[in-house]
Amino acid sequence: KGNILKCMDGGGIVLLRTTSNNFLDIWDVNMLRRPDEVNTPQHSTHLYASDHLIVRRGQEFQLKVTFDRPYKPADDQFAVEFIIGGSPQFSKGTYIPVSVAKDRQSPWAGRVVDSTDNVVTVGITPAPDCIVGKWRTYVAVVTPYGIRRTRRDESRDLYVLFNAWATGDSVFLDDDDEREECVLNEVGVIYHGAYDDMSERPWNFGQFDYGVLDACLFIMDKAAMPITNRGDAIKVARKASAMLNSHDDDGVLVGNWSGDYTYGVAPTSWTGSTEILLNYSSSKTPVCYAQCWVYAAVFNTFLRCLGIPARVVTNFYSAHDNDGNLKTDVILDENGRIDKHRTKDSIWNYHCWNECYMSRPDLPQGFGGWQAVDATPQETSDGMYRCGPASVQAIKHGQICFPFDAPFVFAEVNSDVVFYSRNPRDGTLEPVKVNSSHVGRMVVTKVPGQDARRDITDQYKFPEGSPEERTVLEKAEEYGCHREKATPPEADVELDMPLMEVRVGDDFELKLEFNNTSDQARTVDVYVSGNVVYYTGVTSSEFLFKTPRVILDPKKAEKLVMEVRSQDYMRKLVEQANLHFIATGKVKETGQIITSMRVVTLHTPKLSVEVSGLAKVSEEMMVTVEFTNPFKFNLEDVYVRVEGPGVMPPKYKHYR
Amino acid sequence: KGNILKCMDGGGIVLLRTTSNNFLDIWDVNMLRRPDEVNTPQHSTHLYASDHLIVRRGQEFQLKVTFDRPYKPADDQFAVEFIIGGSPQFSKGTYIPVSVAKDRQSPWAGRVVDSTDNVVTVGITPAPDCIVGKWRTYVAVVTPYGIRRTRRDESRDLYVLFNAWATGDSVFLDDDDEREECVLNEVGVIYHGAYDDMSERPWNFGQFDYGVLDACLFIMDKAAMPITNRGDAIKVARKASAMLNSHDDDGVLVGNWSGDYTYGVAPTSWTGSTEILLNYSSSKTPVCYAQCWVYAAVFNTFLRCLGIPARVVTNFYSAHDNDGNLKTDVILDENGRIDKHRTKDSIWNYHCWNECYMSRPDLPQGFGGWQAVDATPQETSDGMYRCGPASVQAIKHGQICFPFDAPFVFAEVNSDVVFYSRNPRDGTLEPVKVNSSHVGRMVVTKVPGQDARRDITDQYKFPEGSPEERTVLEKAEEYGCHREKATPPEADVELDMPLMEVRVGDDFELKLEFNNTSDQARTVDVYVSGNVVYYTGVTSSEFLFKTPRVILDPKKAEKLVMEVRSQDYMRKLVEQANLHFIATGKVKETGQIITSMRVVTLHTPKLSVEVSGLAKVSEEMMVTVEFTNPFKFNLEDVYVRVEGPGVMPPKYKHYR
Repeated sequence: KGNILKCMDGGGIVLLRTTSNNFLDIWDVNMLRRPDEVNTPQHSTHLYASDHLIVRRGQEFQLKVTFDRPYKPADDQFAVEFIIGGSPQFSKGTYIPVSVAKDRQSPWAGRVVDSTDNVVTVGITPAPDCIVGKWRTYVAVVTPYGIRRTRRDESRDLYVLFNAWATGDSVFLDDDDEREECVLNEVGVIYHGAYDDMSERPWNFGQFDYGVLDACLFIMDKAAMPITNRGDAIKVARKASAMLNSHDDDGVLVGNWSGDYTYGVAPTSWTGSTEILLNYSSSKTPVCYAQCWVYAAVFNTFLRCLGIPARVVTNFYSAHDNDGNLKTDVILDENGRIDKHRTKDSIWNYHCWNECYMSRPDLPQGFGGWQAVDATPQETSDGMYRCGPASVQAIKHGQICFPFDAPFVFAEVNSDVVFYSRNPRDGTLEPVKVNSSHVGRMVVTKVPGQDARRDITDQYKFPEGSPEERTVLEKAEEYGCHREKATPPEADVELDMPLMEVRVGDDFELKLEFNNTSDQARTVDVYVSGNVVYYTGVTSSEFLFKTPRVILDPKKAEKLVMEVRSQDYMRKLVEQANLHFIATGKVKETGQIITSMRVVTLHTPKLSVEVSGLAKVSEEMMVTVEFTNPFKFNLEDVYVRVEGPGVMPPKYKHYR
Repeated sequence: KGNILKCMDGGGIVLLRTTSNNFLDIWDVNMLRRPDEVNTPQHSTHLYASDHLIVRRGQEFQLKVTFDRPYKPADDQFAVEFIIGGSPQFSKGTYIPVSVAKDRQSPWAGRVVDSTDNVVTVGITPAPDCIVGKWRTYVAVVTPYGIRRTRRDESRDLYVLFNAWATGDSVFLDDDDEREECVLNEVGVIYHGAYDDMSERPWNFGQFDYGVLDACLFIMDKAAMPITNRGDAIKVARKASAMLNSHDDDGVLVGNWSGDYTYGVAPTSWTGSTEILLNYSSSKTPVCYAQCWVYAAVFNTFLRCLGIPARVVTNFYSAHDNDGNLKTDVILDENGRIDKHRTKDSIWNYHCWNECYMSRPDLPQGFGGWQAVDATPQETSDGMYRCGPASVQAIKHGQICFPFDAPFVFAEVNSDVVFYSRNPRDGTLEPVKVNSSHVGRMVVTKVPGQDARRDITDQYKFPEGSPEERTVLEKAEEYGCHREKATPPEADVELDMPLMEVRVGDDFELKLEFNNTSDQARTVDVYVSGNVVYYTGVTSSEFLFKTPRVILDPKKAEKLVMEVRSQDYMRKLVEQANLHFIATGKVKETGQIITSMRVVTLHTPKLSVEVSGLAKVSEEMMVTVEFTNPFKFNLEDVYVRVEGPGVMPPKYKHYR
């Protein structure tokens, strides 16, 4: 009868259309992908701008097959087939034939929902652990001459995502508000600045924007991630933490903390992820430039876009370069002055990373839930720039023997700052002060459904000084996190630098408050150093250095006030204008060392955005952006970058 | 007095020699590095061919300092200083001042062993967890004008190694025989072939050869491994498992399983590690070519050279490409014939990896001891080609949730071979036979101190079929290793292909033994396929295919004999000549599937080596190498490669 056999997809056989009509002939396959059709609202995927059907696994979707005549269950046999990747194999889960016959078990359940005239509505439930990505859809009819299968039709391609709503999915999250926020919210806020003087950075995650889903899948392709691993949320998150930065693997974003962004976009200029992801997937080369919040924001887009619940968190005073060591060392000379040459570790003023929600079948029970992942290149985790997923619950309990990179995250929130006095004669170091409450001062994230922040420090650690905290630190030590054992005596003179709110361009006063708790007089030689620092804690330049001597009567407090003029620091400012003051001193009578640190966030002028005219579909609107120059001089070369999520792509304006 | 200050090493201060003689003046520092001096015999490092002192950490060594006058403990103060890396820091353990004064604590203990005339013998005990590598030695004298320090003198450089003899060291191994073998033995045997027909490959590890220690340290430099990590045996072993292969990181050896070694040395040609390591460290580019035993052998040299106890193990029938999955799939068509197109996983006839001995402070107690590490690039572990260290004890008990790569090693020894019958109509697969005893058939290593092999299968798993084994497999499943759940009924016809010993060039008989255990007649259609395979299990080409029908009387056994002629397979041979026979069949009456597999190792002719004349120092010796051509044709283009560990570097001879 003139049947022509042809190999297709490495998988099955195509039988070209014949004239025989004893068997079902397929006229049309409709994926029901319009937002007003049944699938996307039920799968919470109606927000994606896409030409294809997007569904979440572990949940039924429907498609309509139109035959040349009514379907007769007793006589006719047909299957819907799904194929992903280059060499589909049933046993690898990359070739999925779905039968609607009652007596057949398919890896994805199939059933006839309705059969009217020539049209059969088929319900298909992808397995809750199936591969996430872009599948190709075929319908095959069994005939005595072989299998009759539809040809490849791109419009029938099907995206299958992780499903936080499906109990069987490893990313199942049993909380409506959290799901709405951490999967479906396209905009968010990233916190930065200082824990007691926080700033907000609004961000357009844009996970539903046209092309973003393809860009996210491209990232895994670029990493040559095996198709068979792409249903595993742990592996997807870990791979992405490596791929979001360009180190090792030509990943998405190039880090740059230098202050010179001539050949790219300054990290502070980005307002959303869409442009970055589309740029990467079209150019196939890393995008310039990022710092931690950009990595975290784009990572967040990636995770939400694929359906893994995710949020950005900010840790204030994040220890860095710990290398499994729970100490950040500050070296003082014999007079109590910081030895900058020998002080190499740094504490980031803040650091952003991500949390994603998933079960951890690879670990003992109890460590599922939120997992810390971090795409910012800091230390190399296990030889590559990536970090996590590390169970937040495991970190809280010091159970850092489980993968991945838990000791690193543990150190970021738990390190001690140890001040050493260096003996100039033989170079030995003696610990003189241990500050165990500075690092990991506060961890925050956005409240689901609200424009407010939530302190989640208690999810990472027990209260400072509690017996549980001590137990956890001991547990972590068992697993090789080394701590400073010395407990040098507390000095009987206290030193504090209280919080200041300062705007860029302000002159202001730096206050040092001394308190002599002893009943004897005390003389303190103080070294006060003011530095412009990057948010990473790395010093750019020193703009203030003073060495006052303070004499304290018994049981008396003293206040020392220093004038800081804008001209002192303005010329040395780098982006993310932070000033870091560190005061150290030696009490003459006792030899004890006192220290205090203060980060001053320089607040930039507020931009006001005003919309004039009615917001009407397909009519133009006016947006007025205004800000007041806080300086005593004229501003030149001002760039303004405006983005309207879903309304207007990013626009730049330059004012000479 | 004309003192000149100068910065040195980023660390201290050099005071050039002055005329003042009130203070100690250093005339000489003697590292006592000759084999007849005190240090190297005590540290078991006398075998190293080196110009420098080599010691093991956690154990005292001595050096002699000659001053201009006798040392007076009450008045004089001096210290021996050790520095490693580019930016020495006390707090990082890269700058170690050792004082001999009783009232001073040094990170490395120091004491005066003897003080005679102007010569002070100092005993120094490097910390048992100190950094392993090449340290620079200085002696410093404290004077009122500052510190007076010797200049850099390369001959005083000190190599500090891991110490299997020191209780405080993480690689402490409390067994004399094992230490002798796994640290100090320069030669060894690597097993290959088949578990029931094993061959031996002698290997010259050469860890004490001149330049090998420097080459091993260069590997860590090339990997840019932080100096501060180099005291951690876990990190050193893991890093090396990545660096021994050239994937990702331009590591030591390029893998090649193609059979075409035109641009390098064939893997089978190597007889030792020295040439490979020296070649790599001088050219700084990967060496061509390796297969698993070459990776394992060179890795072994690396570990033993640095003092980490190590051995090469061979696993017979090693599952591959498991990807956390405990199945190797063989797909049969509806007639019971193998569908080669759809059978993609492979089982290596054997696979070699390494074990190294160390404590695991990063894991809960009980998982120290032997750790599996593997430098052969198979799957990417965590995105890089490397594997381990994975606790062998944890693998045995299914505790595969701990780092590193335990699920992968677990699958190598525990996978099931699952035969599926493929339904040609809809492509679904039905498991028809599960063979759970094929993979990980036997794990062997060399007996310490003897030229004999030791079966260490019981260190990797409990006996096949024991209740413990079942528990372990269930445990591993909890951690995400998926197994085949189906238990298809055993066929009532048994099929076996018994062992054959065959030499290259032999004609031989392949026997198929059938046994009908039922009380009815059985008809079996059999497919017998004979293939030349690489040791990786990958088929090179088929040289035999037969489809006999066998008729069995009730309760009767039958034998089927097939002639295999050398001309059938000789032309298709690849190196490591293995023949793989697989017989599958379908019992006509019951539809049951029967299978059997047999690897035939083709034994190559034995080389005999004879030494004539007396072996006398600095006199020439004659070595006669002989072998008999087993073929019926003349041999052309024969290469002979001879190496005499410690006697003669590798030599090639070519016979046209």
